[in-house]
Amino acid sequence: MKFGGTSVADVKRIEKAADKVREEVSRGHEVAVVVSAMSGVTNQLVDYCRQVSPIHDAREYDAIVSSGEQVTAGLMAMALQKRGISARSWQGWQIPVMCNTMHGSARIESIDTDELNIRLPKGEVAVMAGFQGVTEGRRITTLGRGGSDTSAVALAAALGADRCDIYTDVDGIYTTDPRIVPEARKLHLIAFEEMLEMASVGAKVLQTRSVEMAMKMNVPVQVLSSFEAPVGSDLPGTLVVPEGQIMEREVVNGIAYSKDEAKITLVDVPDVPGIAAKIFETLAQANVNVDMIVQSSSQDGKTTDMTFTVPKADLPRAMDQLGKEPDLKTTQTLADQNVSKVSVVGIGMKSHAGVAQTMFRALADKGINIQVISTSEIKVSVLISADYTELAVRALHAAYGLDKKNKNPL
Amino acid sequence: MKFGGTSVADVKRIEKAADKVREEVSRGHEVAVVVSAMSGVTNQLVDYCRQVSPIHDAREYDAIVSSGEQVTAGLMAMALQKRGISARSWQGWQIPVMCNTMHGSARIESIDTDELNIRLPKGEVAVMAGFQGVTEGRRITTLGRGGSDTSAVALAAALGADRCDIYTDVDGIYTTDPRIVPEARKLHLIAFEEMLEMASVGAKVLQTRSVEMAMKMNVPVQVLSSFEAPVGSDLPGTLVVPEGQIMEREVVNGIAYSKDEAKITLVDVPDVPGIAAKIFETLAQANVNVDMIVQSSSQDGKTTDMTFTVPKADLPRAMDQLGKEPDLKTTQTLADQNVSKVSVVGIGMKSHAGVAQTMFRALADKGINIQVISTSEIKVSVLISADYTELAVRALHAAYGLDKKNKNPL
Repeated sequence: MKFGGTSVADVKRIEKAADKVREEVSRGHEVAVVVSAMSGVTNQLVDYCRQVSPIHDAREYDAIVSSGEQVTAGLMAMALQKRGISARSWQGWQIPVMCNTMHGSARIESIDTDELNIRLPKGEVAVMAGFQGVTEGRRITTLGRGGSDTSAVALAAALGADRCDIYTDVDGIYTTDPRIVPEARKLHLIAFEEMLEMASVGAKVLQTRSVEMAMKMNVPVQVLSSFEAPVGSDLPGTLVVPEGQIMEREVVNGIAYSKDEAKITLVDVPDVPGIAAKIFETLAQANVNVDMIVQSSSQDGKTTDMTFTVPKADLPRAMDQLGKEPDLKTTQTLADQNVSKVSVVGIGMKSHAGVAQTMFRALADKGINIQVISTSEIKVSVLISADYTELAVRALHAAYGLDKKNKNPL
Repeated sequence: MKFGGTSVADVKRIEKAADKVREEVSRGHEVAVVVSAMSGVTNQLVDYCRQVSPIHDAREYDAIVSSGEQVTAGLMAMALQKRGISARSWQGWQIPVMCNTMHGSARIESIDTDELNIRLPKGEVAVMAGFQGVTEGRRITTLGRGGSDTSAVALAAALGADRCDIYTDVDGIYTTDPRIVPEARKLHLIAFEEMLEMASVGAKVLQTRSVEMAMKMNVPVQVLSSFEAPVGSDLPGTLVVPEGQIMEREVVNGIAYSKDEAKITLVDVPDVPGIAAKIFETLAQANVNVDMIVQSSSQDGKTTDMTFTVPKADLPRAMDQLGKEPDLKTTQTLADQNVSKVSVVGIGMKSHAGVAQTMFRALADKGINIQVISTSEIKVSVLISADYTELAVRALHAAYGLDKKNKNPL
């Protein structure tokens, strides 16, 4: 059971979370709990570090920011003990959760569960501080923002847990953002692959890395609300499972969107072999991730236009890097931040034709121009003007029959 | 160099403390730093624990409240690095500072300095989180409130440091409380024994336990202000040293007072052997520390009055315990909270007669009635009505020639 920052924002909420743990214990389950820092605490600690120096020792940063989870873990253990449940807190270095030395965004290498495997069967609840681990050299590491989800999945995998329940401030994964489409339905079941596509394109309920790990480790993850379901109720969240466990696959399960990308167009680049390699190598050197790419067919056999997207935050760095590349002969380099990526996602589309066509038709009917298209086995994404984002999401949600009125919940 | 909570209250003050460390490093010294939590942080953490439960697992309490020092240690290391000084933070478990399992008020058993002894000579500053240690079982311990002073002295002793500088919000130890006597002088040199008497009777600049440890380990301690002396100045604080290092011993070095005691008088207790033992045994059972004791000489050979002092906070428990003792036949048990203890302290009085007499005469001249007297080798204490505290302290300060106008600083 993993509780995020808003779920442990103050002592009252920690008590409420402890009630949920008691509920699970009373059902006869062995329970390990992973907690985030109280919401706001990590930001405060990060701010202290920035005040001292914008560029600082990542090892010290980790020692500082990991303290938030340490506090919550202790308070949660106390709250459980108050309820008559045997419990103790575990910091990353106490378990230990061994990590590599990439301070600030460390990777978990192993979790030693020997001690927990003795204690859990005796009914003791382990409360682990999320987001943190320790290196061989006994320095504290953190896993990057939102890393507590990854901690929880990794612990669940190491313990061979039946399920990893992630308590958060939403009650599950929806077919799309309910703020845009009030008819959006909660999904009861979603495949890891779908979740990854939904998360990476904007439905940020779970940290992408935690979903990747859950998929790799085969740990079913459930997303639940800490707030909506009264204690003792069985109002389900969304269960994220391996594709093979989903019997009836929806062709399209959700519509995702992201406004975090920017478009770059290189006009009239020489249409010679190796030019694309040159462009993306130079961007990789500047640590810029390129997402969608489209190359227009050459009109004259000599030059072509190359369009691609980068994270909005990386746009200045990308433009700077491209300007410094002497071999890159273009007549113009255009940047457009007013774009958004809209995707339809569904594992069922592997075996269904016509998914993309439905998408293009629905967008055309609303007069929305498609700038770039990219596809994978389980999604189709288009880049459009950001002005049309909500209109596009609503149109696609209806076009694939995802609106509540059209469907019964599973 | 130890910096207390007000000296590291925010990032600006941590920067200022880092400037002082740089100053010491630039003088060619090897420096280890011990820091407290930012002021207010520990209180906030303790408050969280109390909110969860007034009675809580001391091990979890320790895991929670130790996080404050962890943050400051990291920030101080960063601030030093920004100044071009090689530095790293050390938490109690990383050194390790081995403690017993008396969680919440643990005793330090050993400090492993192997790693520091390699790093310090290379010019690396060690920044240790104060107040904390770790048990054999790898649980975090804390040393009790104000324990960072003890951490600093213990580390200084383990490293064989030449001196332990305690930076605090006062600039040294004074002959008495300057708020009462504006003429109070700063002492440049004071013996451990005197410091203990000054501290335990109210001049609470250093944690008593840290002074005891410094005395036992023979670590000279300097008390300095973090605020008053500009960086680079040599305005000295007060040096606390073994008695043997003080050449010219003042007969009386200071006047201390405490309003934290209460007086209990048992009227007409049977004047039989063993009655005193009975009384103080019963109080010891209730964990009440008795300080001053006086037994009046019996008038009739059958009964006597017994007067003693207990900490004001323990008075209700003491009265309750005495009321439950069936063998204690008294006509009355009187409690008086309106008392204060005033002491004259000085290692020179061992070899000087007339110290007590000067005290009694000075108090008599002001019409102050002495209720109880107690003496040790280096102090004379009297219990008086609390109303006269300030008057008594001023009169004694003048009577022993401690006022500024009468003396030149050493």
